[in-house]
Amino acid sequence: MKFKNTAVLLILCDDKDGIVADVTTLLARLGANIVYLDQHTDRQNMKFFMRVEWDLEKFSVGLDDFKTIFTHDSAKKYNMSWELHRSEDRQKMAIFVSKYAHCFFDIISRWKTKEFEVDIPLVISNHEDLREEAGRFGIPYYHIPITKENRSEQTQEQIELLQKHNVDFVVLARYMQIIPPEMIAIYKNRIINIHHSFLPGFPGAKPYHQAFERGVKIIGATGHYVTEELDAGPIIEQAVQRVSHKHSVEDLIATGQDIERRVLARAVKAHIERRILTDNNRTVVFS
Amino acid sequence: MKFKNTAVLLILCDDKDGIVADVTTLLARLGANIVYLDQHTDRQNMKFFMRVEWDLEKFSVGLDDFKTIFTHDSAKKYNMSWELHRSEDRQKMAIFVSKYAHCFFDIISRWKTKEFEVDIPLVISNHEDLREEAGRFGIPYYHIPITKENRSEQTQEQIELLQKHNVDFVVLARYMQIIPPEMIAIYKNRIINIHHSFLPGFPGAKPYHQAFERGVKIIGATGHYVTEELDAGPIIEQAVQRVSHKHSVEDLIATGQDIERRVLARAVKAHIERRILTDNNRTVVFS
Amino acid sequence: MKFKNTAVLLILCDDKDGIVADVTTLLARLGANIVYLDQHTDRQNMKFFMRVEWDLEKFSVGLDDFKTIFTHDSAKKYNMSWELHRSEDRQKMAIFVSKYAHCFFDIISRWKTKEFEVDIPLVISNHEDLREEAGRFGIPYYHIPITKENRSEQTQEQIELLQKHNVDFVVLARYMQIIPPEMIAIYKNRIINIHHSFLPGFPGAKPYHQAFERGVKIIGATGHYVTEELDAGPIIEQAVQRVSHKHSVEDLIATGQDIERRVLARAVKAHIERRILTDNNRTVVFS
Amino acid sequence: MKFKNTAVLLILCDDKDGIVADVTTLLARLGANIVYLDQHTDRQNMKFFMRVEWDLEKFSVGLDDFKTIFTHDSAKKYNMSWELHRSEDRQKMAIFVSKYAHCFFDIISRWKTKEFEVDIPLVISNHEDLREEAGRFGIPYYHIPITKENRSEQTQEQIELLQKHNVDFVVLARYMQIIPPEMIAIYKNRIINIHHSFLPGFPGAKPYHQAFERGVKIIGATGHYVTEELDAGPIIEQAVQRVSHKHSVEDLIATGQDIERRVLARAVKAHIERRILTDNNRTVVFS
Repeated sequence: MKFKNTAVLLILCDDKDGIVADVTTLLARLGANIVYLDQHTDRQNMKFFMRVEWDLEKFSVGLDDFKTIFTHDSAKKYNMSWELHRSEDRQKMAIFVSKYAHCFFDIISRWKTKEFEVDIPLVISNHEDLREEAGRFGIPYYHIPITKENRSEQTQEQIELLQKHNVDFVVLARYMQIIPPEMIAIYKNRIINIHHSFLPGFPGAKPYHQAFERGVKIIGATGHYVTEELDAGPIIEQAVQRVSHKHSVEDLIATGQDIERRVLARAVKAHIERRILTDNNRTVVFS
Repeated sequence: MKFKNTAVLLILCDDKDGIVADVTTLLARLGANIVYLDQHTDRQNMKFFMRVEWDLEKFSVGLDDFKTIFTHDSAKKYNMSWELHRSEDRQKMAIFVSKYAHCFFDIISRWKTKEFEVDIPLVISNHEDLREEAGRFGIPYYHIPITKENRSEQTQEQIELLQKHNVDFVVLARYMQIIPPEMIAIYKNRIINIHHSFLPGFPGAKPYHQAFERGVKIIGATGHYVTEELDAGPIIEQAVQRVSHKHSVEDLIATGQDIERRVLARAVKAHIERRILTDNNRTVVFS
Repeated sequence: MKFKNTAVLLILCDDKDGIVADVTTLLARLGANIVYLDQHTDRQNMKFFMRVEWDLEKFSVGLDDFKTIFTHDSAKKYNMSWELHRSEDRQKMAIFVSKYAHCFFDIISRWKTKEFEVDIPLVISNHEDLREEAGRFGIPYYHIPITKENRSEQTQEQIELLQKHNVDFVVLARYMQIIPPEMIAIYKNRIINIHHSFLPGFPGAKPYHQAFERGVKIIGATGHYVTEELDAGPIIEQAVQRVSHKHSVEDLIATGQDIERRVLARAVKAHIERRILTDNNRTVVFS
Repeated sequence: MKFKNTAVLLILCDDKDGIVADVTTLLARLGANIVYLDQHTDRQNMKFFMRVEWDLEKFSVGLDDFKTIFTHDSAKKYNMSWELHRSEDRQKMAIFVSKYAHCFFDIISRWKTKEFEVDIPLVISNHEDLREEAGRFGIPYYHIPITKENRSEQTQEQIELLQKHNVDFVVLARYMQIIPPEMIAIYKNRIINIHHSFLPGFPGAKPYHQAFERGVKIIGATGHYVTEELDAGPIIEQAVQRVSHKHSVEDLIATGQDIERRVLARAVKAHIERRILTDNNRTVVFS
């Protein structure tokens, strides 16, 4: 994910004939060299999704002007929901952790190797356990312990921290607390959770114990946007791993950590690269 | 799975020290050349599972005598559940089908190429659709349509057919009917079903429609023994396939057929080769 | 793969700005309801690939007229290689077999269940082994044994049979003979072979023996178009399966058959659905 | 991989009847509670491999005495190669790196989360790039630049460092230099390399470029012990990832890093847990 001087346009609207032709013709007229183009039509729900990315080098208008042009052109004609991004704009990503370090280290590693081109202004946790690890990488660490009694005010403090640091999206790297509706409302489709099962199987607590009890031959993990219903938000990414009767619960937990790492990383990467559109609790993740 | 002059001993008992030593020492004393040995200890439930297979060429006693010896030796000492099989004894397998032919063809193909060394005395169906296909391969086809009203007597007819043909086990190759308790009671852990989802996700009807609605990124299939609780029996085998937003329900169904074929074949193969032990609704499938 | 009243246009040309806009605008003008659109730019070689499929229901011109229009429009402007197909045109597929039946059965099964909407006018083999199986399905079987001495004239006989039956493409379902250049010349990118290894590893004879010797932990199979260089043609599809030290050569062969079946089926399906473009010994396989 | 008070016995010898019985009977007599037992017979080469692990709690003899007993018992009778380890003995692992950080971070992460229960006395590199990262974790970093001229003396310096720190085994975490025979001789089957291709495909330099050129549909990585022949040592672990025509060389490199991480981690874990036996350039990796 190296630096690219491109713009990304994401489109969601009802399916009609001619959308691709109209959008690509407009871009061609403005001198866009398209470097990525993919679209999808959900024929069940007659919805159209599109992602187009173009080089800004020879683009004849500024992005603000393009916004104005597009608003009165295809966006209006097809009644589109759409967003426009400049690839070089670095997003600010907050990480929420609990006691497990494996997902945290994986994310940090991808950030240090520039696979994730983001800023990480802060780590928030309900425990002290990972303070030292965050400190190694010079990332401010906020310990905000949650109890039943203080949940409301602590959530308020979390939100204030996120807003103060202009956080664009939040990654729950095995943060074991439920996210309250007031935070979800502010960061809709911008809070990414990793659930340690192959959803919809084994939602809720202790999924590896559930998997052991059921005797499944494959375990998995699911990266999804957080919604108010627990473990039921739009799925971004899933992966699985074959297991057998030889795996104890502890073995499932250990094996599962590798899947969690990988799934969360892919979900975060798709979000950073603005490849996700969400409709009707389902995602379109462009490749 | 070529012809082998071997015996297979399957053991299940509470875990104790010394079982492997005792069993292998007994076999060594009797001249057994062990060609397969694997065991498993479920430490959660303190159960011991073992599968041992030996060449009968130089075995110094007949299998009936060995049964007597073993009964008074390790089997008694450790209070084992156990079964002994001669590999060359061909099992009789009944196939139940409905309208879908893909699993039926796959099974027949493996039978014709001798991957499955079994006899197939009959196919039973609630529809006429596959009569011609069974006929191509010279397999008798029984059309036993099921309705709410006649379920009980039709089940009785099915059981009589199975017993008349000395059927050892039943494969439900996308047979879309519920198996009544009276048949399950007779063929406990001997009726293999393929469910077209990655259980425990999406049990019951129309799993691919459910998968589409939920927006999962991976679909799967599950081969399991039939128990009274629907889609909740001991899992023998599972496999999955990555899908994306591009897959309509129809695409999921088509993609899923490949997984169903493969999973059912592996489950049936493990059963034929007597590699499965079941305890507490979980299977041990030896490799 | 049900009957569809659509046209498929496949395009290959040097990459230029505006191709998508031009083609989709032309189609929109002619009333095409696009049901599939995907394109790919190989930036290494600056080549552009596109597949577009549209409903012919409301298309305002016949396909012959469209050919004329397109020839003088985008095809000329961008100097395209292109082909146009009507989806309902059934292709004629010949199957070449040797002694192994597993791939043959798999293909026949997909043909009988209408996953493959083709005609199969003949099976050609250098052995008699599968005559009975072809006969079961009413497919004419030609036994053309190949020796070093008669290879040239036997090849001639094969070609005459293929041409007499208007065969569109050939599937080598574990046909263990080398295809001579004169046949490859006629059926360029229309002969699909399954090689039983993960190419470029283990080309040539006895790949499972090679895999065992090397001690690999994963085996695979490769579906590819046949070119004059052995096992070096454009790869269409590959799949793999994890193995371990427990697998003898015989186990690898048995396990491999499942991969071969699956890979060949996917390669054939992509070819039937006209989703493959080939350039520079590499394929673009649209999803 | 938590602390375990167990002993691990690894056995390699010619296959004979009765080995399992003899070894398990001896252990049972000495009060061993066996917590792991697996064996393998390579029937091609008539070799027997075994790994047995037992709890030392109630074991009636010390490990030194057991060595003496075993030497004169089964080891002698069957002319075994064997090794005995106490699980709690922490091994010392050296890491060699070049400029890529992804494998380094992954290993460090597993060490910090105690998945790898080893000591890491030093990192050696031919570049300065990762000095800061090693420093974050307090690991001494030795910069030993290699040129054609100084290879011999620099290798000597490396060996001296390894010996001074009592290093048990070496992990080449994308160290891009060839290991000279004099080091391989000292650390036979104790130097683990990650090669960024699915061997035997694409050995040597720039495997992702080779993979792109060949147009493969799956890429992979291979963890192996280093031998004098480049990329030809005993394979410990392999994994793969599906790719498509959409992947540029850069995409293959990025995708591949995830596979490399995972494969190297699994290979290192198997080595730490003493689950690997090597014979005839092939490994037996017990699960």
